[in-house]
Amino acid sequence: MRMFNQVVIIGTGLIGGSLGLALKKQRLAGKVIGISRHLRNAKIAKKIGAIDKVGLSLEAVSGADLVILATPIDKIIDFAPEIAAKIKKDCIVIDVGSTKERIVSRLSALIPNFLGCHPLAGSEKKGAINLEADIFKGSVCILTPTVKTKPVILNKIRFLWEKIGASVVVLSPDRHDQILAFTSHLPHLVAFSLIGSVPDKCLKLSSTGLRDTTRISASDIKLWSQIFLSNRSNLLTALLAFEKELVDLKIALKNKDKKSLERILSLAQKKRKKIE
Amino acid sequence: MRMFNQVVIIGTGLIGGSLGLALKKQRLAGKVIGISRHLRNAKIAKKIGAIDKVGLSLEAVSGADLVILATPIDKIIDFAPEIAAKIKKDCIVIDVGSTKERIVSRLSALIPNFLGCHPLAGSEKKGAINLEADIFKGSVCILTPTVKTKPVILNKIRFLWEKIGASVVVLSPDRHDQILAFTSHLPHLVAFSLIGSVPDKCLKLSSTGLRDTTRISASDIKLWSQIFLSNRSNLLTALLAFEKELVDLKIALKNKDKKSLERILSLAQKKRKKIE
Repeated sequence: MRMFNQVVIIGTGLIGGSLGLALKKQRLAGKVIGISRHLRNAKIAKKIGAIDKVGLSLEAVSGADLVILATPIDKIIDFAPEIAAKIKKDCIVIDVGSTKERIVSRLSALIPNFLGCHPLAGSEKKGAINLEADIFKGSVCILTPTVKTKPVILNKIRFLWEKIGASVVVLSPDRHDQILAFTSHLPHLVAFSLIGSVPDKCLKLSSTGLRDTTRISASDIKLWSQIFLSNRSNLLTALLAFEKELVDLKIALKNKDKKSLERILSLAQKKRKKIE
Repeated sequence: MRMFNQVVIIGTGLIGGSLGLALKKQRLAGKVIGISRHLRNAKIAKKIGAIDKVGLSLEAVSGADLVILATPIDKIIDFAPEIAAKIKKDCIVIDVGSTKERIVSRLSALIPNFLGCHPLAGSEKKGAINLEADIFKGSVCILTPTVKTKPVILNKIRFLWEKIGASVVVLSPDRHDQILAFTSHLPHLVAFSLIGSVPDKCLKLSSTGLRDTTRISASDIKLWSQIFLSNRSNLLTALLAFEKELVDLKIALKNKDKKSLERILSLAQKKRKKIE
């Protein structure tokens, strides 16, 4: 079922490009135009079939029924005024950024039909070479409407995500950012710190434990420093909670307090089993 | 090539049982006897073919040419005097514990032909149900001889691990414990703290990032509290280094210092790429 005649995806990296593939696979879009600051990335996306045409400038949005902002956070915000000025009146604009408060407050002020989205998909891999239409299957996509969001827009975008295999959860932008600080941004911060603390000469004796725990520290640096900074206050709160846990374990260890140690580990383990 | 007529494996869990399977697959052992405090585990191990016979008590070691201690650390140490008293004079004894200083100092004092081993294999899964002969293929096994270790014993055990697919690294017990504090014990401690700090109500919005980062916190509690306590001092040193990294990131974040943030993340990322 074609939902949109023309879709413009800005940023044809892992999420943007995979969205193109998924939209085309489900025949939800007539024509998909992809814009990337890395022309090579956009060309690969076209070759793979994720987009029909490479757009060379933001001008392309003028014919769009749906614009998908899939660049790092700062660019989403930078591009917004120009996009707002160029789109058709009824064009829907969504983003796929990892933090929502800042993006939603800026973009919904400029674009009436804007809806913030955050697909919990993707990986530490980036670029067009890793695109796959099925990346959203079985994943969760969080939509963050405001009081101003029209129900018809929310429903249309919900349908889009469900059609490509995601389960939709609706949250306010600030609740989204509070939760994701714990479930995504803190784990990334910790993974970077963990690998950073391992002396170089020890690395060759690492096992799957260190590898899994730090996998996400192979993620894109610029993307993640923007995420950390744009969710700074919630992330600092989450970090405090983590430091408290760490101190509890440290005290038990210092005191050779096996009972406390086992109690803390056991509570943690029970929680882990809930996300199997 | 049969290296040992009779092998006794004490502890038929993931590592002990998989060792049994691997030894039999490579025809390195004549008869393999497995002893487990969980009789059910030992019976499954026999059914799978990891052992030929279930041993009901430590008496079984009296006929062994090789005894493999594959229980949690405390039991390795507890069983040592009885094993020392019962084995044949030329019997080789190895263990597969995750810390080495304490085990090697106790056991090498009691058993002349003792050699500490630590295969960097295994996972958060435990029990006989997850046994596989190939778990050691492509893995690293660390051997921790002392000045008293006979070269012939070291060579024989090195050959055994290489034969079942592991690359052997030789380290002193204290160097082993210093390194593993960083590459294995710290990641486990951090994973337990990380999942422990996530509020329950946030868990359902976790993505692969949190799942991977905390996978090892599903590991056995008693096993890991013993590992933490037996490598306490090195682990506290590693924890300090980690806390320093964390504070650096926290300060950059507090100060909205994008440049420092990117520099720290970039150093971490480069290190991560070395363990791909």
